[in-house]
Parts: sequence; structure tokens; C-alpha cells
Amino acid sequence: MIKTDILIIGAGPTGLFTVFEAGLLKLKCHLIDALPQPGGQCSEIYPKKPIYDIPGFPEILAGDLTKNLLEQGKQFEPGFTLGERAETIEKQEDGSFIVTTNKGTKHQAPVVAIAGGLGSFEPRKPSIEGLTDYEDKGVEYIIKDPEIYRNKRVVISGGGDSALDWSIFLSDVASEVTLIHRRNEFRGALDSVEKVRELTLLNKINLITPAEVTGLHGDGKIEAVTVTKDGEETVLETDHFIPLFGLSPKLGPIGNWGLEIEKNAIKVDNSLNYQTNIPGIFAIGDVNTYPEKLKLILCGFHEATLMCQAAYRIINPGKKYVLKYTTVSGIDGFDGSRKEAPKAVVQSIS
Amino acid sequence: MIKTDILIIGAGPTGLFTVFEAGLLKLKCHLIDALPQPGGQCSEIYPKKPIYDIPGFPEILAGDLTKNLLEQGKQFEPGFTLGERAETIEKQEDGSFIVTTNKGTKHQAPVVAIAGGLGSFEPRKPSIEGLTDYEDKGVEYIIKDPEIYRNKRVVISGGGDSALDWSIFLSDVASEVTLIHRRNEFRGALDSVEKVRELTLLNKINLITPAEVTGLHGDGKIEAVTVTKDGEETVLETDHFIPLFGLSPKLGPIGNWGLEIEKNAIKVDNSLNYQTNIPGIFAIGDVNTYPEKLKLILCGFHEATLMCQAAYRIINPGKKYVLKYTTVSGIDGFDGSRKEAPKAVVQSIS
Repeated sequence: MIKTDILIIGAGPTGLFTVFEAGLLKLKCHLIDALPQPGGQCSEIYPKKPIYDIPGFPEILAGDLTKNLLEQGKQFEPGFTLGERAETIEKQEDGSFIVTTNKGTKHQAPVVAIAGGLGSFEPRKPSIEGLTDYEDKGVEYIIKDPEIYRNKRVVISGGGDSALDWSIFLSDVASEVTLIHRRNEFRGALDSVEKVRELTLLNKINLITPAEVTGLHGDGKIEAVTVTKDGEETVLETDHFIPLFGLSPKLGPIGNWGLEIEKNAIKVDNSLNYQTNIPGIFAIGDVNTYPEKLKLILCGFHEATLMCQAAYRIINPGKKYVLKYTTVSGIDGFDGSRKEAPKAVVQSIS
Repeated sequence: MIKTDILIIGAGPTGLFTVFEAGLLKLKCHLIDALPQPGGQCSEIYPKKPIYDIPGFPEILAGDLTKNLLEQGKQFEPGFTLGERAETIEKQEDGSFIVTTNKGTKHQAPVVAIAGGLGSFEPRKPSIEGLTDYEDKGVEYIIKDPEIYRNKRVVISGGGDSALDWSIFLSDVASEVTLIHRRNEFRGALDSVEKVRELTLLNKINLITPAEVTGLHGDGKIEAVTVTKDGEETVLETDHFIPLFGLSPKLGPIGNWGLEIEKNAIKVDNSLNYQTNIPGIFAIGDVNTYPEKLKLILCGFHEATLMCQAAYRIINPGKKYVLKYTTVSGIDGFDGSRKEAPKAVVQSIS
């Protein structure tokens, strides 16, 4: 059982900044995210896109924002359960909650902060007969560890950045990479399109367009796929089939936690501290809704900060907290580090 | 008469970020600030101090935050009335407001956003008989334009960073700089203390400690000050007397605008959009109060953003606004500039 002060569901920018604000109040955080790395959408969907509306950054790449937020919170030593989806929640007699993931990992905390963004990102799956039977048996929708493809034969399908970028990356790892797309045209960064063209000419990527994977074969695991091109079927031997058709956000199992939901978002009390209808469970960032809500990262930062104050009071009943300014008081990390502004010296001149 | 969409009282970080968020909604801003430069406390009180709790910045100097916010908003061409204090407000028949400064400058706008921080910074004045009679007649509490001291004799009193830094700076501008402090010890950055010591040895600063200015002389303007040291009085001829004893924030004339005030802050409706009890007047950042309010810069950013949406509806009644993400839609500046994320290309490979 993993125990913490604030259990954060979702490791996007709002969840990551919560670690910092909680740390200032001496509260420890643990984050659960279905994606294999922290950063949420910023890391998974658009790490190389600039964001223009983070206050104080005329422009910052989404990936860099994630990196900065991790750096900002790291002295408060957050824990992570990554690549697992928060599935169930149970309230305990002592008022705490136990959250269990789809892989069975259990977490206990007196406060739960749902910072789940637009939800957990579920892969869009092509409709091929028997596809789900082969999941984790040679069919993967997200590449978590490229090493599992070393010296294997890989078939990737899709026409966007993910399909292009992973084909390029795996061309150096796998023994054989086949990229299949139902159109001749790809939609991606200019660099990537050109790189794939080059690797195709060098026979490092086997490109088949316009074509589709229409059948799967194998006994207990993928051994081959049927490729249909111009109405003609051929069978291609492979160890992996990776359809990369994008991710679409779903509120998922959180939708069954008894929280008040409105328009696929969790209703919170914005006149106080973004608590949901269940005391002790808060919702911050894009996952929540309230009058005048804006789904912007900078709003998540504010919501996280106010929520942490409420968490402090739940965890330290009766104890009074006086806001200290980091510029004045500095920051004491849980790892023993200390940050502080240079102090003025008092010194005699004459 | 200066006309604008949102008239912002206070050019600190919250006011400056409002320019950006308003600009995204095609609203123009004009800012009034009593200080001679934008940035509020960040520029005036602690430009070289690091702030640790701006989301995405593990550490940023307050002066750099100001610079970044100015840069972020500059394509929306904000107007500034600096070195003047917003004094009176009058509601017009058309629903707009006219705000007049202490120097008589008039501004008209349908929406007023008070982002006044802890208030306007009023200098702490030493109690010397007749001091106020000499204000702007050789007595200054804030140095707005160092050039007015060129080749003049200057007496500075105070023992902190301002007194030290301005003594250093003016030692190259004025014909004579005298620094008077009631203790031998100064409280300031190590560098500054050492530099003053050095300039004193070179006779470029005339240091008198422990001593106080106890009298002022001159006909219509300062001509000399009485300095008391060890109980003995001497008279020192000078053209300027600059007491630098720090600034203390006062809500000031805004306190008389008919706004609901609680604990020296303006009450707002945080369940919606930070509007005050007077429709069309909003209060954002440290100047406002509501249940669970935290006086943090990051909260001001959020409040400014929600307020701009309300301002949009006041200024464009009946028009519907759909939130666009800058990462997706880019930014069109009022100066004709355009920022946008690199677009994915659609291109044939084979």
C-alpha cells in the first residue's frame, strides 16, 4: 500500500504544480497517471508545440513546461504510479481513501485531488476483427518501452506524427519496420515526413500506401497481418502490430466514483476550494467545471494552490497556517535542500 | 481624454498579464500606476530577488518576471500613464467610467480593473519640521529621473538598499553626495555596502554616521539641512534632500470609490468573475479579497483571465465568445504581428 498526504490522479501540469504548492505546506504527494510519463497532454500529444498563454512565458514548448514543473517540485520528492489507470476508490472508516489502479496497485491518502485533465487518453482503435484479443500479445497502441521491439519485426499503421516519428525511431531498433497508411499523404511535421521518405529510399522503412491492415493472425500472439492494397490481400509476417491512430480523452472509471458530473466534467465549489460533492475529494484543472470555468493551464495552477490550503486543514485539523512568501521565507525541500533569496547583510561601513 | 476597453489601475504582474488575456479577446488596455515604471512591487521593491512560486519557473528574479510579462503583452500595444495616481472615478450616463489622476489626466473605459496590489506605495517620511512644505522643492522621496541631480549637491538619508544604491549611482551624477544614517550599520546587499565603503574612501561619497537630518532651511526651496551627530548640530548646504526610508502600501483614494472594503482589500465575487459591488468595476490580484483568498501572483493571473471574459461580455453585449487555444489558433497582435505553432504538413511520401 502506497501512503501519502495528497493522492493526485493525473500527472499533467496541474497535478505537477500541486506537488510544489503542497510541499510548501509540508504535505507529500503521489501521482497516478495512465500515461507512461508525467506531463499529461503536454508530453503525450504536443511536447514540441509552443504554448503562448502561460503567464511569464511569451512562448514555451509544452515539453519544456513539463520539465520545468518537474524541476520546480522535485525537492518535495513526489511519488509516481505511471502507466496505470486509477480504477476504484473506497472511503475508509478513518476518513481516508484507498484508490486502486487497473493493475491492482493500492494507494491510501486523506485527500484525493483529481487533476485528470480531459480524462485518461484512450487509444483510437481500428476496427479489425479480433484486435482486442491480441492486446499485449503483439498489439500495442502506445509505445511505452521501445526496447521491447529490438530486433523484432514491427508493423505500424497510421498517418500522423506518432506513426511517422515511431517509424523513424524504430527503424534503428527493430529488425524490420513496415509503415502502412490508407492514403499516400501523411500529416506531420515537415522534418518527419522528409525523414521517412529518406529512410524508405534506403529500405530502412518498408512503406505501403494506400493500404490498410485488415486481418490479424497468430496462435496466442501476433504472427502476421493481412494487408489490403488496391483490393488485393497479402499476408505479412510480423512480431508486433502497432496501430497509432491517436488518443481520445475519456473521463473513464472516475465517472463512476459518485462524483457530480456535468458535461463530462466534475462539478466543484469554486466559491471556496474546488472540493467536489464528496468531502476530501477535490477536482482541479481541466477535469472540473464551475460557473465561468476556463479550461486553461494557468487556471489549474490557481485551483491547485487553493486546494492545497484546504488539504492542509483536513490533514492538520485545528492547526493554523500562515501564508509565507517564498521570496521572504525560502523553501525547505523534503530532500534536505534549501532555496532562499540572498539576504541583506547588516554591516558597518565607517 | 485617453479611451480604452479595459482601464487597469496598477501595472504590477496581474495588471500586465491582463493586457495579454484581454488582447486575445481583441480588447485594448491602458494602465495607470503611481510608480514611474511598470512591474509594481516586483520592480520597485525587489527586482533582484528570486521568486520561487511562479508556476513553471523553479526560480525567477522579480525584475525578469516583469520583463517577460511586458514582452508577452507587447503585441497588444498597451497604453501607460505612469507616475500618476488614480484619484477619482465617475460613472457616465453611457455606463462607462472616467478615472482622473492626481495630475489631472483623464481616462475613459467601459470596464475598470483594479489591480492595485497592496495599494499605491507611499514613502515613509521622517518627522522633520516643515518637511512637506519642501516637497517637490528639493525634497524627493522617490527618484524618478536621476538627471535632475546632475551637478547638484545631494543629501540622502536612510540605511537600506535604496539609500546605498542611489548614493552609489548619484556619486557619478551629482557634484556632491552625502549619505546620512542614524546607525553605523547598513542593511543591504553585500556588494552595495562594499561599494559605498570604497566610494567613501575615495571621497566620492561623504558619509556621516551615526547622524540624523533634524532641520531644513531655504527660501521657497531647500538650501541647507541641519545634521545632528553626537548631540552636535552642523548645517550642510545642499540642493536636494532625499529621505529613502522605504515605501509602505496604502489603498489610497480607491478606498473612497464606493467599493465594499474588508481588511483594507476590495471585496469581489469569486464565485463568478471577481467583479466588485459596482458592476463594471473588477478587482484582481492582491488588492481583492474573498473566502479562501491567497495573495499570490499566480492567483492574480487566474483572476485576470476570468475577469477578461466578463469584460468581453460587457463590451460586446450579445456576442458569443468561444475560447480558442493559443497553441491551436496562434495569436494576432494589434501591431499586425502573428505568432503561431508550426503547422503539420500534409504531404505525399511515395
